[in-house]
Amino acid sequence: MIFDILTIFPELLDSPLNESILRRAREQGQIRIETTDIRDFALDKHSSTDDRPFGGGEGMVMKADVLQGAVNHAREQNGPGRVILLSPQGRAYTQAVAEELSQQEHLILVCGRYEGVDERFRATCVDEELSIGDYILTGGELAAMIIVDSVTRLLPGVLGCADSAERDTFSRGLLKHPQYTRPRVFEGQDIPEVLLSGNHARIDEFRFLASVRQTLERRPELLAGVSFSAAEVKVLKQHGLHGQIMALQSESA
Amino acid sequence: MIFDILTIFPELLDSPLNESILRRAREQGQIRIETTDIRDFALDKHSSTDDRPFGGGEGMVMKADVLQGAVNHAREQNGPGRVILLSPQGRAYTQAVAEELSQQEHLILVCGRYEGVDERFRATCVDEELSIGDYILTGGELAAMIIVDSVTRLLPGVLGCADSAERDTFSRGLLKHPQYTRPRVFEGQDIPEVLLSGNHARIDEFRFLASVRQTLERRPELLAGVSFSAAEVKVLKQHGLHGQIMALQSESA
Repeated sequence: MIFDILTIFPELLDSPLNESILRRAREQGQIRIETTDIRDFALDKHSSTDDRPFGGGEGMVMKADVLQGAVNHAREQNGPGRVILLSPQGRAYTQAVAEELSQQEHLILVCGRYEGVDERFRATCVDEELSIGDYILTGGELAAMIIVDSVTRLLPGVLGCADSAERDTFSRGLLKHPQYTRPRVFEGQDIPEVLLSGNHARIDEFRFLASVRQTLERRPELLAGVSFSAAEVKVLKQHGLHGQIMALQSESA
Repeated sequence: MIFDILTIFPELLDSPLNESILRRAREQGQIRIETTDIRDFALDKHSSTDDRPFGGGEGMVMKADVLQGAVNHAREQNGPGRVILLSPQGRAYTQAVAEELSQQEHLILVCGRYEGVDERFRATCVDEELSIGDYILTGGELAAMIIVDSVTRLLPGVLGCADSAERDTFSRGLLKHPQYTRPRVFEGQDIPEVLLSGNHARIDEFRFLASVRQTLERRPELLAGVSFSAAEVKVLKQHGLHGQIMALQSESA
């Protein structure tokens, strides 16, 4: 998979793209990441990438013609690709979107800055506008890295068995259950007894219930989209949780 | 303001913390960022920061005693501070949370990895658990950078007048209106005529309506929390948008 990242701060991306799982995935040839400096496609002698907004107001707007030049360059180098603009106006980025994107062969990620980009660039050149969350960042660079990281770990062969993506939070819509490791007693707190029982069915049930309770407490809205097996429904009923979940699911339906 | 970032990949943070607005804010002394390598607080000869989960299962869990050592170190260096764990199980990070955090003097950001952290570290040492979005990252490092970036730009004096934070998307709960800059015609598309009128009242109204329409179309749920002035309500009524917004607001009430 190829990621083209278009930015006016290419150096900002250096270290995150060269550590940990991304470095390994690059070395193993599972991904290729190229950064393009948008400034190289400026059309005037001052190398401007932005200009004042029509209609007045503070701040600067990134120029449609310059951004288009950078996108065309990425396409000439690496083929058509899907053009994604990172901006707070975009569709919410979620694990489901990460899974969609992991099916693509080439993503062109455009990092917005300042007061945003010229609307006509968005209308003409952008396939999809994504927002990683409801907060304001200085630019789209960190958002692009979030997309590269979360998509890369879904690609075949990137994660070993030891850290399979399928067990992750959100992969089935529930928050993960609490985990415990050595020392067995920490600050006077022992671990839950069941985890030492060696009884895998009981441990699985304990974890499942802890996962459901954690989700109910912190992010009840997530439960609306989760389906449970007949065996799980039985466990939920035994522990008096089924009614509450049914209520949440019918509310959102 | 002081940010302590606790991670097993300190090098990963190098370039984003040294570019653009964060670099300027550090040079001007508005923020100080220190990274601590959690591995320095490992207690065995193999420098382990993680171990297998009690109860079995794949993956590794970060050790409570090692994490506690790193937090204590940050506190000894820079005072008490608020300890924030970055994890997909946390409360959703939003612009409102960024504003809360910008009132603090010292944040200690703990970057989780692998299958998560020992629950007893969370219970004993963590003041708040935050999630930057419903997707899975390799670790909390990118999330910590998002918090540092979004909080720093809210601190007094960090942004110049030219890029004031108050005008940003989400600062009043609406998505931003489209922006246009030169060239006036791009790919055969002219800019909206009103932006050339020089009539600021008309331009403001045009932008306000565009902002409301964009929010209605892409993120209607955001409108539930927005309050409008009497003058704005009049404009919304004139353009047939008021009923729709009232319906959204009463639905969520």
